[in-house]
Amino acid sequence: MVINTLTVSDLRFPTSRTNAGTDAMHPDPDYSAAYVVLGTDSGIEGHGLAFTIGRGNEVVALAIEAFRPHVIGRRLDEITSDFAGFWRLLAGDSQLRWLGPEKGVIHLALAAIVNAIWDLYAKAERKPLWKLLADMTPRQIVSCIDFRYITDALTAEEALEILEGQAPTKAAREIELLKVGYPAYTTSVGWFGYSDEQIRGLCRDALAGGWRHFKVKVGGTLEDDARRLGVVRHELGRTCKLMIDANQRWDVGEAIERVNALAKFDLWWIEEPTSPDDVLGHAAIARGVAPVRVATGEHAANRVIFKQLLQAEAIGVCQIDSCRLGGVNENLAVMLMAAKFGVPVCPHAGGVGLCELVQHLSMFDYIAITGTMQDRVIEYVDHLHEHFVDPVAIRDGHYLPPTRPGYSTEIRPASREQYAYPSGEAWGSKKLEVRS
Amino acid sequence: MVINTLTVSDLRFPTSRTNAGTDAMHPDPDYSAAYVVLGTDSGIEGHGLAFTIGRGNEVVALAIEAFRPHVIGRRLDEITSDFAGFWRLLAGDSQLRWLGPEKGVIHLALAAIVNAIWDLYAKAERKPLWKLLADMTPRQIVSCIDFRYITDALTAEEALEILEGQAPTKAAREIELLKVGYPAYTTSVGWFGYSDEQIRGLCRDALAGGWRHFKVKVGGTLEDDARRLGVVRHELGRTCKLMIDANQRWDVGEAIERVNALAKFDLWWIEEPTSPDDVLGHAAIARGVAPVRVATGEHAANRVIFKQLLQAEAIGVCQIDSCRLGGVNENLAVMLMAAKFGVPVCPHAGGVGLCELVQHLSMFDYIAITGTMQDRVIEYVDHLHEHFVDPVAIRDGHYLPPTRPGYSTEIRPASREQYAYPSGEAWGSKKLEVRS
Repeated sequence: MVINTLTVSDLRFPTSRTNAGTDAMHPDPDYSAAYVVLGTDSGIEGHGLAFTIGRGNEVVALAIEAFRPHVIGRRLDEITSDFAGFWRLLAGDSQLRWLGPEKGVIHLALAAIVNAIWDLYAKAERKPLWKLLADMTPRQIVSCIDFRYITDALTAEEALEILEGQAPTKAAREIELLKVGYPAYTTSVGWFGYSDEQIRGLCRDALAGGWRHFKVKVGGTLEDDARRLGVVRHELGRTCKLMIDANQRWDVGEAIERVNALAKFDLWWIEEPTSPDDVLGHAAIARGVAPVRVATGEHAANRVIFKQLLQAEAIGVCQIDSCRLGGVNENLAVMLMAAKFGVPVCPHAGGVGLCELVQHLSMFDYIAITGTMQDRVIEYVDHLHEHFVDPVAIRDGHYLPPTRPGYSTEIRPASREQYAYPSGEAWGSKKLEVRS
Repeated sequence: MVINTLTVSDLRFPTSRTNAGTDAMHPDPDYSAAYVVLGTDSGIEGHGLAFTIGRGNEVVALAIEAFRPHVIGRRLDEITSDFAGFWRLLAGDSQLRWLGPEKGVIHLALAAIVNAIWDLYAKAERKPLWKLLADMTPRQIVSCIDFRYITDALTAEEALEILEGQAPTKAAREIELLKVGYPAYTTSVGWFGYSDEQIRGLCRDALAGGWRHFKVKVGGTLEDDARRLGVVRHELGRTCKLMIDANQRWDVGEAIERVNALAKFDLWWIEEPTSPDDVLGHAAIARGVAPVRVATGEHAANRVIFKQLLQAEAIGVCQIDSCRLGGVNENLAVMLMAAKFGVPVCPHAGGVGLCELVQHLSMFDYIAITGTMQDRVIEYVDHLHEHFVDPVAIRDGHYLPPTRPGYSTEIRPASREQYAYPSGEAWGSKKLEVRS
């Protein structure tokens, strides 16, 4: 099977019109995808995406185009037989790496392409991605990972040992997963732009729907944050888990003060208290707010940042992102490091398609890396799933394992047409404008 | 003065044809600039650029366009009267920040724009940039800096104190600077792709030209690195300073081993031993290779990474970059942090225009921040200066202070035409292709 076309689209959903998705740093997100389709001589297509929140999506789309020469004309089996080598070819492109390296726009673009290849691979093997990964041998998994820059934290031998330790009991966990699904938490009740009344109603609906883990956006005035958390905690009672998310709003000292002032609401974790680049800052915050755990990762640029967050004991919760890290391969590296350091992986999701993708990774984590779902939950946001060919299925606050072949990345053709920016019907003649 | 046009060009110089600029990770750089011109109603133009090494320059150019709405229609004095606020407006754009935040393509684009505004500002004030900065009061300088995420290392009050400490003696240092210039080192003798004979000849020429600080690229086999360093050290004798640069080639353990194996050549610093994101890795290397000092910064994404490199005692040399950091404003923050932590700033330069720009920052560092040139050198690479309207002037291994108004960012119109990619004459019909 040879990849012979690469088609990029700029898709944007006008979510800012409803205040959904709002937080302290992002008051007006238009959830968007820089979307790539790889065509092959077999007719099977691989779909991949990078998630952005509106303006600049065109920049990521153009960056995907920059990788075209590395992809066109390649055989799928040539890629998958040395997947780490292919990954390094993209990440290490001798001129493109200057734009990162391995961060920001160029790494988002890489993720979109790498994920499209995994979608293609899983479709070719006629398995959902989580099952494709679960059926691979420990040695095959390790061969997908570029260990450059992480050998001081995790070697290929150590990764192999972790996977081999779980291999004999994988089958039993697969059965368990198919039966109960993977636990989730909801972020949909407490967006920053929602009123107290909205939040109250959404909490009640979510409790009735079986949810037991809830996350609320903070980072306004202390009074506002405390009032909103008071509303939520009152609705939830004491048995549900409550997490807060500051979306990078604070400096280090400020974060410690604010979290301690809010700790009376019994917080399971504080997410993104400060700059996502600040490993030492997160470590200081972790020491300053214990026993509240620090979580971060949706903006952690690559495995090198995650490595340090783990080494510095800066995080108690490791939030991988299916499209911010360099696709499945780099996520495997981070999940294995987290396992070695004993930190649970609770993925970032939401946006466009992040739930659809990342569920596969957590399911693989359970089956083949850690063997447990204890203290692990995947984020869930009730947005835009209707645009996907294979949308997530949620039951009683759990993700049910996908059964269709692929990585659940594919957006329906009609949606791709309608939300194409700026030509699609959803945008009419209205282009995105900077709001002041 | 109102900014009323923004024009972006993709300029590329085919430097890979000569092996100039080659290192262990970048065997074929085509030095390039994503170049922006801000036009005003006064006729004065501000020029700015971001440096890349070829492919992907178009992505940075498009990212510059994404900032257009924040720039067009703005008065220069409105920007400069609250420069920190303007900087945060760009860096914090509620949708564009998702592409970074503050790193990679989107931050390079921000740097190009911010530097163009400083060029405009300096031209409007009819001063070279270093002089414009030197004439500002400590309070004015501090008002240019966004302290978000660095207050745990440096507060505005501490920055003010550093600047006020040097203010009374600025005039004497300005006179000294005009007399002797600012010390430099050369990287032009030891590119990775050069033969031993080329290196030998270039060392002799450089010694005759007054150079006393030399940097050589390493990261090949240990035997090759040792042989090349042997050639250079033999030519230089024992009194000249010799530095090595691995351009991110090694993992942490490997870096320690390799530097220790090369330490017999009496190394002043090891530059970029590993991933630029690896603060803790650099700290481990610094402990493992002392007394050889660790240097990094040309790929340090922002002030948050520099903050941690300083906090962790990971660097003995702070290599700011005029176009990787978010322009003059963020460089001011890093220079002030370095001063507080007692680490000398020795800027990264070379590429296209980096020498022209960063000299202004080191000169300001001497006049108003640290008051010393001891153990401080600006990188110098003998490339592409002929394309600039106000090229650097070097005498006896020293940069001479620019005297023309502006930030020395302006590339000659004829060069801009000739090296426009892909339409310019330098490229003919030959587009850049991936070399395998």
